[in-house]
Amino acid sequence: MELKDKIRVIEGFPNEGISFKDVTTLTKDPEAFKAAVDELAARCPKDFDLVIGPESRGFLFGTALAYKLGKGFEPVRKPGKLPAETVEVSYALEYGTDTLQIHKDAIEKGMKVVIVDDLIATGGTLQACCKLVEQLGGEVAAVVAVIELTDLKGRELLKGYKVESLVEYPV
Amino acid sequence: MELKDKIRVIEGFPNEGISFKDVTTLTKDPEAFKAAVDELAARCPKDFDLVIGPESRGFLFGTALAYKLGKGFEPVRKPGKLPAETVEVSYALEYGTDTLQIHKDAIEKGMKVVIVDDLIATGGTLQACCKLVEQLGGEVAAVVAVIELTDLKGRELLKGYKVESLVEYPV
Repeated sequence: MELKDKIRVIEGFPNEGISFKDVTTLTKDPEAFKAAVDELAARCPKDFDLVIGPESRGFLFGTALAYKLGKGFEPVRKPGKLPAETVEVSYALEYGTDTLQIHKDAIEKGMKVVIVDDLIATGGTLQACCKLVEQLGGEVAAVVAVIELTDLKGRELLKGYKVESLVEYPV
Repeated sequence: MELKDKIRVIEGFPNEGISFKDVTTLTKDPEAFKAAVDELAARCPKDFDLVIGPESRGFLFGTALAYKLGKGFEPVRKPGKLPAETVEVSYALEYGTDTLQIHKDAIEKGMKVVIVDDLIATGGTLQACCKLVEQLGGEVAAVVAVIELTDLKGRELLKGYKVESLVEYPV
């Protein structure tokens, strides 16, 4: 199973110059979806406590991964979406900033957390997820993603963490 | 396992008068999450082709369900999120309208589709999902959700479809 063959690349979405990696052609394919989740699971550490992932595409792989490994899943969301008390991290985008939140009671001190997303680009979103885990006293056990855009050097921003991806593109 | 005990109810979110059902306390609990996904799976018809679910909480249960049953998952999203050609349905809210889209090539003619969400309230979102399936020539095999708010009568709006939920609240 060549996962890359199942990912649709769409030029100019959402903006001119972006080569968008569409994972819906992968998730809708039963064998490719199973292969991706199983391979993400194989890249996770043996011993950890919780899976988290940022909205919305992090949910696509994060919950299936959590289910497969018999773990729970906690969503990381944009402001205003989570109903209980949250902690938050803001981070820089190319233009402006973005903020992500997680429920304060999602992670207990010392918990080992795997962070999942569909894609590692600049690493900003995933670094924010790492900070949320650490703000609550948790430990980032691994950062795993289906796709990595290697020229955007997300791995440098995530230095010090165990980072795993299944499919690489330059951008 | 009493799933209802794992759902957190938060009064006044997102607006005054709303009794919000927070499923993150369920998804983060490994046994409760597994029990919910397994029970959703048990409520699905034996024979179907694809799972779909609306953003974002539909993804939480939809992808895990798809994974468990060896199916693919296709997201239903708000406008501007899906990169390829879409079809769309607009539907009335209490104030204004909302629109949902799905990729045009997500569903082939005659495909049997299970629609998943965390919650059935008025049924508007799920009815829109049914219309998207039918617009593409697919057949709604079932509509399944973790929670049903029975006083909001979503089941009436979804009349004619097989509707399953695991936990009921009046509102």
